[in-house]
Formats: sequence, structure tokens, C-alpha cells
Amino acid sequence: MENSIATTEKIATKAYGASGALLGGETLKPMDFERDAPQADELLIEVLYCGVCHSDVHQVENDWKNTLYPCVPGHEVIGKVTYAGNAVTKFKVGDIVGVGCMIDSCKSCSACREGEEQFCEHPHGPTMTYNGYFVPDGSGYNTFGGYSDNLVVKEDFVLSIPEGLDISKAAPILCAGITTYSPLNHWGVKAGDKVAVVGIGGLGHMGVMIAKAMGAEVTAITTKEEKRASATALGADHVIISENEDEMKKYEKYFNFILVTIPDPFDITPYIPLIHRRGNLVTVGLLAPYKAPLNNMEIASQARSIGGSLIGGIAETQEVLDFCARHGILPQVEMIDIQDINKAYDRMKDEDVRYRFVIDMKSIKQNN
Amino acid sequence: MENSIATTEKIATKAYGASGALLGGETLKPMDFERDAPQADELLIEVLYCGVCHSDVHQVENDWKNTLYPCVPGHEVIGKVTYAGNAVTKFKVGDIVGVGCMIDSCKSCSACREGEEQFCEHPHGPTMTYNGYFVPDGSGYNTFGGYSDNLVVKEDFVLSIPEGLDISKAAPILCAGITTYSPLNHWGVKAGDKVAVVGIGGLGHMGVMIAKAMGAEVTAITTKEEKRASATALGADHVIISENEDEMKKYEKYFNFILVTIPDPFDITPYIPLIHRRGNLVTVGLLAPYKAPLNNMEIASQARSIGGSLIGGIAETQEVLDFCARHGILPQVEMIDIQDINKAYDRMKDEDVRYRFVIDMKSIKQNN
Repeated sequence: MENSIATTEKIATKAYGASGALLGGETLKPMDFERDAPQADELLIEVLYCGVCHSDVHQVENDWKNTLYPCVPGHEVIGKVTYAGNAVTKFKVGDIVGVGCMIDSCKSCSACREGEEQFCEHPHGPTMTYNGYFVPDGSGYNTFGGYSDNLVVKEDFVLSIPEGLDISKAAPILCAGITTYSPLNHWGVKAGDKVAVVGIGGLGHMGVMIAKAMGAEVTAITTKEEKRASATALGADHVIISENEDEMKKYEKYFNFILVTIPDPFDITPYIPLIHRRGNLVTVGLLAPYKAPLNNMEIASQARSIGGSLIGGIAETQEVLDFCARHGILPQVEMIDIQDINKAYDRMKDEDVRYRFVIDMKSIKQNN
Repeated sequence: MENSIATTEKIATKAYGASGALLGGETLKPMDFERDAPQADELLIEVLYCGVCHSDVHQVENDWKNTLYPCVPGHEVIGKVTYAGNAVTKFKVGDIVGVGCMIDSCKSCSACREGEEQFCEHPHGPTMTYNGYFVPDGSGYNTFGGYSDNLVVKEDFVLSIPEGLDISKAAPILCAGITTYSPLNHWGVKAGDKVAVVGIGGLGHMGVMIAKAMGAEVTAITTKEEKRASATALGADHVIISENEDEMKKYEKYFNFILVTIPDPFDITPYIPLIHRRGNLVTVGLLAPYKAPLNNMEIASQARSIGGSLIGGIAETQEVLDFCARHGILPQVEMIDIQDINKAYDRMKDEDVRYRFVIDMKSIKQNN
């Protein structure tokens, strides 16, 4: 179908989405809609695989009070180019590509010029792959993500999938991968550093593998004794059960960098003493206040820092894909059909997935 | 009196100190005691000037629940060497020298070896110039600071006062100076950066001058309209009154680095939006929890960091003295006699000092 689509032709799309914040077992349902046809600088992409991120659950359930309905989640997309606009230069029909959390930004502000589109300074920020952008006055713009059979995306926001990455498993790199790689990268983790990853789930399991590939000594910190063996299998040098005070005590002042991937409000207090002097703790995956005030005595006494981080820029997302291919890092996934998405959400809330669900999107054809 | 002191001879010392946490107008009283005579690697120093730090008030009043009594404060000392032990190599009798917050450390741990004696990993940490080290089991070791006519200090913890620094004003560099210089230095503030200094007192006024000398554009943030002119006189490019929400709003995402010198628990929340992406806010002078939990949404949305810092190492303290001499930076001080120290504490609590009291220690001779 190369170049066979007129730019005025709408693209019929099958998807799973939520029409409102209907909590419970039947949140996501089949949904049909039309996408605008690709412009000259856009690609039409057949979605092959889509990762299921914890953010999808938060967004569908309107936990952040900014959800635009209908909500079609999905921002960990691996697909195949089925049409390339006339002005597209980097991709051609048949290419295997990735789409992450963003599909557009202003491209002219200082953040965009620095390749940090996630901080785009336009009043509404970047356009997200789903839930576009939310403006409290009601003028938000909705977009529909990868729980669908196709996407239309500007080529500048499309990633190349390097050869050697198993495309059935790579999708979570587009969000879980970049979200953990970016802070490890920006806070300067290097070979020999002692790194802890708190929370061994979708994000945390990527963090363990990426930090390890960076040459760090990696410790997994988890609440669950049953994750000890699997964290070790991921490459963790040590495992701490966070409720074991003796184990926590043993690692006081130990870590140059602590990456916290806990997705719900938590008390940061027990983790501070574990940071080495001039070390950093960075939280990803939490968009809410901590449960208790930070104690500046504990922070200042070792010149520690507490930071937060949010996905990464497009260039950096390409970087993590290439990094994972080079180091043989693949997310550990459980493949599901789209029809099982509501069950998958329930299991995610129970932390019952090792470590990421990926939807095989050919299953959506069964909904004919 | 060069080398005329036998190492067994005790040094009769006149001081001002507190015998207990007696709050109110007569906390500090004249006190006589003997110091151990200097060892081969130690100097006997006649105290000429001693700065009055907010920590002195906290310590005397046992705000940190770790005060050893009697408490003789003073860790911003300018003095003259009156005796040098046989093994001393860097100083001679007659030299003008400085003593800051520490007078000893283990010198063998990794922190000491990296020149960061303030983080000495010995179980009791470094030995402070006063209040030595506090061990909760009662085995602490007391030391007596610069509110006295002499000090005995290992030469490795003694600073050279560079020529060109007015010794009657330089004392506050030994604590207020290093405490603000160290975070500006370690968090990499450079020419062209936008720096805010919150709280324009003893620490803050040094922070403004030092950041300015580093080439930053400096904004003073204060609660007091009447400090606007004096902050500008210190070199601040802009002044924000923190209670003016419009002014605060105007500087959203503006600052690469915010140095907060507020000495009492405060709510960090209003300052977070002022930090530029990937910028840092560092609190000095507060050894307590913030008043409200940090919101990781605000932190992560711009990959910000919140840190704390505590004085600096000995080499870095020498660095800030040299830096101040090179850039013509001098603390703005109000000279007092030691007999006025209790009044000075009351005025500090009322924030009624521009910006640091320095005790002219020759006044202690009047107590004969």
C-alpha cells in the first residue's frame, strides 16, 4: 500500500479504549474511530506490539485528574511502516519502528532544541501519544495510543528499532526503558558505582539490567521475598527486602545512586540513609507527593540529593534502544491478546506480572 | 614566646560559654578553663576575631539535642600563631590564620582522603571546633571554640589567611563563606547561570557575593522589603519578595540553582516551581525536616533535584578564602565586644543584623 493513501483519506482504526473513568473489570472495550490521514512528514504505522504501562492504568482511571475521554492508552509501540508521506526522509515502508510517549512538540523552545522534548516549554507541553495534552480550561487535544491497529506519527517522533532486538519483547524499552535509562544517564552513573533499584516491576527490572550494563554494582530493593531469585536472575548483585531493617541498616551510606520506581505515594525516609555522600536518589513513575517531609538533616549531613525524572527526549530514546541492542537487554514480558487487557490491569494492580505485559496486536483482528 | 611552651604546660584560657541550656538574656557568661598544651603538630593561636554564627545559638540552646556543656561556641576564627609545635611545617609564629568548623578528623577514611573531612566516616565523625563530637551513649568529647582568647589546633585544620583580606571582617568566610561556596561549587554553578539565594542573612549575603563572583546572574529572595536595597548593594541583579506571589510566578522555571539559607524549618513547596529543568535547589543552614512533603510531580516534571549541604572540607575552605581575596569579597559585619554577646543573640533571633556579628576578641581582656 506504499504511498497509496491520499492525504485526505481517513484511516479506519480498531482500538481498545475507555469511554469514561469506569473503574472495575470492564474498563476497556473495543472501539472504532478514524485517524486523520498522514501528512507529508508523517508515517502510518501498523501496530504489531504494544506494552502495557502502569501509567495506562492511572490515565484510564483518571488518577491524575487530566484524562481526556475516550482514552485509548498505549505508548510502548513496536510497528511496521505501511505508508510514508512524501517529505519523510528517515523511514520507508516496511521498516520496523518504535513510538514512545510523545508524538509531537513545539520543536522551537530551548528544551526541544536541546533534545529534551519531554520538557517542551510550549504552554501545553509536548503532545503525548495518548491523552494528547490536557489544558484545565477544557481546550485540551486528545490523541489515541497504541492499543489500536495503527498510528499516524510525525517521523521526527518515530524511533528506529535496531537489528537484533526481538521485536516481540522490545516495546517496553520505549517507556520503561527510557524512563530508567535517562536518570541513570543524566545523573552520571558510571562503571563501579553502587546503584540500588527500588521496586522490581516493569520499570525496575529494566533499571537493574541497564545499570548493570553501565558497569554498576546493582542492588535490587523489593518488598517481596519471592522476587529475590528473579532479581538475581536479572543481574542484581545483591537483593534487599526493604522491610528487613537489619538488611537496610547494613547498606547505610552505600549507594551512589538510588533509582526508585515505586508507582504510588511512599515514604522516602527509610531510603535516605542508604545514599552515599554526594549521592542521589531519583524517583520515576510517581507523580504525587511523598508521604512524609524530607529531613534536611539527613540530606545535608552527607550532601545528598533527591530528584525526579520523567521519560526522556527522542534522541535519548533512540540511544536506549541502541544501548539495549548492543548489550543484549530485553524486557521480560508476558504476551497477551488485547481481549485480556482488563484482566491484565487487575493483575498489574496485584503486582502479578513478571515484568511487563505486551499486547500482541494481531489479536485485535479477532474483533471483526 | 616562640617554642617557649613545654608540651605539658596547660594554657590558661578566658572564654564566654554556657554552663547549660539556660535560655534567655544571660545565656553566655565569662568562663575560665585550661586547654591542653599544643602537641608537636599543633599551633597555639591567639584569637583576634570570632564570627557569631546562627549555629552558635542553636548549639547553646540545645536545639539539636546534642549539646555538651559547658558550651563555648565560635567556629569562625581569625587569629595569630603564638606557638608552633616542633613538627609544624606550614605555619610559623606571627602568621595570621583561620580556624573554621572542624579541628580534627580520622584522616584515613575515604571522605577524609578525598578532602571532605566534614563527612569523616569515623563512627563519631570529625571533631568540631566546639561541641567536639556527641555520642548518644554519653561518651562524647567536648571542645571549646573561639569565644575565647586562644585555640590549640592541629596545623592540618588551620587555614592561611591570604594577604589582602581585611582580617577584622574575614572571620565569617570560615563558616558562612564555605557553607555557601561549597554547594555553588559542587553543584557546578558557572558563569551565565541563573542563581537565586533565598534568605539574605549571614549565609545568604555571602552566597549572593560568591555566586556573583562566579559569573552567575543572581537573584536575592527575601521576606523583607527593607532588604531590597541592601541585596542590590551586595550585587544581586534582581530581588524577589517571597510573599509576593506575582513576583514568584514571574520567575517560574527560571533558576538553574537555588541556594536556600533559611535556618529554621520552612515549606519548600513555593520554591520548587522556580527551578529550571534539571536545576537544583540546595538547603544549607537547616538541620531539620521541611514543613511539607516534597511533591515528586513538581520535581519529576522538570527533572529537578533537591539537595542539602554542610560546610565544606579543609582544602575547599582554603579555596573559598583565596577566592574571596581574589574577588575582593568581604563579609559585611558589625563588630561587637564579647560582653555584648547575649544582646547579639537576641538581635540575631530578631534578624536584626546586617549581616554578621564579629566579636573583637581583645575585648575579653577587659574581663580581668
